Formats: sequence, C-alpha cells, structure tokens
Amino acid sequence: MPNSRRPPRSPKIGVFDSGVGGLTVLRALVDRIPDASYLYFGDTARLPYGSKSAATVAHYAVGAVRYLQDQGAELLVIACNTATALALDEIKAAAGVEVIGVVEPGADAAAAASRKRNVVVIGTDATISSHAYRRALEARNVAVREKACPLFVPLVEEGWVEHPVTEQVAEIYLSEAFSDDARDADVLVLGCTHYPLIKPLLRRVAPEHVAIVDSAESTALDVARQLHVELPPSSTRTKNEPSAVRQLKFFATDSAEKFRKMGTRFLGLPVEDVVHVDLKE
Amino acid sequence: MPNSRRPPRSPKIGVFDSGVGGLTVLRALVDRIPDASYLYFGDTARLPYGSKSAATVAHYAVGAVRYLQDQGAELLVIACNTATALALDEIKAAAGVEVIGVVEPGADAAAAASRKRNVVVIGTDATISSHAYRRALEARNVAVREKACPLFVPLVEEGWVEHPVTEQVAEIYLSEAFSDDARDADVLVLGCTHYPLIKPLLRRVAPEHVAIVDSAESTALDVARQLHVELPPSSTRTKNEPSAVRQLKFFATDSAEKFRKMGTRFLGLPVEDVVHVDLKE
Repeated sequence: MPNSRRPPRSPKIGVFDSGVGGLTVLRALVDRIPDASYLYFGDTARLPYGSKSAATVAHYAVGAVRYLQDQGAELLVIACNTATALALDEIKAAAGVEVIGVVEPGADAAAAASRKRNVVVIGTDATISSHAYRRALEARNVAVREKACPLFVPLVEEGWVEHPVTEQVAEIYLSEAFSDDARDADVLVLGCTHYPLIKPLLRRVAPEHVAIVDSAESTALDVARQLHVELPPSSTRTKNEPSAVRQLKFFATDSAEKFRKMGTRFLGLPVEDVVHVDLKE
Repeated sequence: MPNSRRPPRSPKIGVFDSGVGGLTVLRALVDRIPDASYLYFGDTARLPYGSKSAATVAHYAVGAVRYLQDQGAELLVIACNTATALALDEIKAAAGVEVIGVVEPGADAAAAASRKRNVVVIGTDATISSHAYRRALEARNVAVREKACPLFVPLVEEGWVEHPVTEQVAEIYLSEAFSDDARDADVLVLGCTHYPLIKPLLRRVAPEHVAIVDSAESTALDVARQLHVELPPSSTRTKNEPSAVRQLKFFATDSAEKFRKMGTRFLGLPVEDVVHVDLKE
C-alpha cells in the first residue's frame, strides 16, 4: 500500500463522497488535471451523511478511504462537505497518504475574494451545524453567516435545476442568509457539492454584488497546486474532452446502475466503469 | 425469544421504520390500541431507504426486526413503505412472529373506498418503482396510477407542512398524478409515512371528489382487527392522552437526541425513552 506523503506529479487520485454530489469535484479535477487516474467512491447505500452524527460519518468515511487506498489511491480528496466538516481529522489519522478536504480550499478562496471580510456559507444541515466553515473563515479574519439549505439537494436530485419552485426556495433561503449582519456580505460559498448544478439559478437570485465561490472548483485548484500542475488559462481550458482523461473508475455501495444513471448528470461525462462494493460494517 | 404466531390480546408491538416517519403509524396504533406496549426502531443512521436497492433495504430491515424481537416484540409492524414494498417477504421469512406491513392494509382500504375502481398512489421513488401498491391494488381489481413525490419528505422535514412552496409542489405532483387515465380516480393513497403531516394541504390540493386513504391509519386498524381490539367510535376516540399508553420505548441507530427532537413532531406526543443502537453490519 502506498504511503508516501509527497504524491507523484500525476498520481492515482482517490475521490470520496457519500453519493454522486462529489462528481462535481471530480469534474473540476478532471478539467484541471486530465493526466491523472481517478478512483471515485460513492457511499450511496449509506447516504445522505447530512442527517447523521459525527461518529457515524467518521466511521463510514474511514472505511471508504481505506477501500480507496487498497485500490491504489495515492492522494485522497474528500469531496463531501459533511465528511470534511465532521471527520477530516479522523480520516487524516487513518490515511497513510495526503488528504485534501473541501472546506479549507473553499475558505481560502472566499477569504481571497471578500473585500468586506463578510461571507455567507450555504450547505446541508450537518455541514452548517458543524461550523467547519465558520471556524475556517474566522481563522482568516472573515465574518461568517451560515445558512442550512436542506431542500437544495432533493431539488437538484429531482432534476429541478431551472425550476420556479427551486427559484422560490432559493429566494427564501438567500433572503434569510443575506439579512441583518450579513447584509454587507460580498461572497456566497457553495458549501455542498450538489450546489454547482444550480449555480446559474443562485447567480440570478443572489444579490448582484456577491461573488460566488464554488468549493468544488476551489478544491480542484488546490489539488492542482499541490501537484504542481500547470493550469491553462481559463479561456483555453479543456472541457468536455473525456478522451483526455486517462482513467475514471467508480465504486458505489448501492446499485451500480443507479449510480451510472444519476452520476452522468453530475459529472457531465459518461459514467461507465462502476463497481458495486459491499462495505460490511 | 417469543415465537408464537398468535399474539396475545395486548402484546408488545415492535414498530420498525427507517427513520421517524413510522411514528405516524405508531401514533395511529397508540390511539387505537392504548393498552399495548410499543418498541419503536428507527434506523436513522442508514436512512433514507427510499434511494436504496432492494437487497440493501432487506439486509437492513432484517437486522432491525431481529433486534426488536430480541427486545421482546411479539408482533411486528413494518411502518416503512419502502421496506414493506421491497423486503416484506424476507422480513417474514426471518421473523418468528406475525409481521404486518403498510401496503396491504392501505390497498384494502383504497379498494373499499373506490367506487370507480381507479386509484392514485403517491410515495417515495423506491416505493413507487417497486410497484408494490400496483400489484396489491390490481389483485383487488382496481386500476392504479403511481406517482413518485420525492420532494414531500424533505419538505415535511424542513417543517414546511403549511407552506406555499409545498402547496406549489403538491399542485405539480397531483396534477401529473390525476391526468389522462387517472382523471377518474376517486381515491388518493398516501403511500409514505411522512405524508400524514401534509394531509390537510393535500386535502386542499387534491380534486374535491377524491377520498384520501392514509396507509398509517389503515395499518393501525388492521393491527387492531388482528388483535380483536374493540375500536371506540371515531368521535369518542382517545387522542392526546399519553397517560393511557402503557409503554413507549424507542431505539435509533443515529443520535438519540436528534431522534427525540424530530420524533416529537411526528408522534405528536413526547418522545422520551430513546436508546442509541449500533447495528454493526
């Protein structure tokens, strides 16, 4: 089993999420580091982590990343805000390789983007009540308003990414988020991997002066930086070129067929090589 | 371990659900059979079952009902539409006691209520795509339209039981449900234990001539019938009298505190005696 703390330049990258949401992080990684091989683990039989306790999430996440390492992962990306928020320390302690979560890169990007030092973070109940983003942003001298938006995930999964109901829900959530102390906030952090799919809608609903920081995007940039991958200028960036991707392999704890079907929407690329995994614990 | 197929008149009743939704079934049971003792198992660490495969649901459900029997349950109520739809046979095969699911009682009540022999069933994705209600109703010579309503559960859990967004979602779902062949349907079956909480809203949105059959209610009546419990006329029925209940004991696989908090809303009675259970498999 590999256990080097300094991964090779184009290593086998293990990406972990509770379900298909982390595929938005995988997509950002593939766009930025197309030469790498990717192993993606979706713990679909036990999702969502958002409603579970820290102990349960840590237990599940450690099992999953061990599996990824057994499959040869040389670098681990925890593409799940809940698992990062509740269990990153346990995962790091259990892993013999470098581990990158989604919270710190998102917080770095938000702190860099906010001139007012005032940021709104949205996410699932578990991510928000863990206060992981609050801690990360306050450590960067940024004031934070956290707002749980539990309906966004089911709305995205229903496919209502451009739907009047989703817009109405977003208006309710964001008007609550950008009120009182957070009226001056100039950055909105998407602290859930499902949210990139409604980014255009959130862009319309959020106050105009607000910059949107997508933690999936920020995490991919952070991984590229750590691997010293040269990034092409964004205008020429490779998109929708799966042929450029060396290898994508998927593991799901529930039905491989379901994962394939739903996953394609989140990845924006064909999801083909899916293996069903039964984690007995 | 008790294994009599003919339970005593006021036995220890084990009620199983993936989460807190089955508490609407427990409530209906408590109202009709206040002399019984109740053991409720909510598999909250592994919910929702609605997005999982039949094999996964059967594996989880069998583990949970075995636990209830170890605790002394003499009669088992599967208060989870998904588990009933996907795993009732496996549960019955594994249990040494009488097992009652929610689908057959709901189908019986719907068949009795429908003069047009034409019924609409709403539920989660997994319940609907299992076609358990379709099979049960067609066996009773009733035509069925099945409609998955995946947003209702998160809307109920958000607490938006009387909310314009929920009303709009209900209008979309029900207008799709009562179209074409189902235009003449005169019964709406609530095939999910979360839905009783939005019954008043669904009553307003559903076509006026449509009768609503609540499978939680139908299941409680079926259990009472099997136990030969005399039912008081509905006008004098005991409600909100927890003192009349002999014993309520709860088991949850995730945080007991979370279960207590959310559960009280679903049960409409205080949820006090909650024990955290760790099912290691």
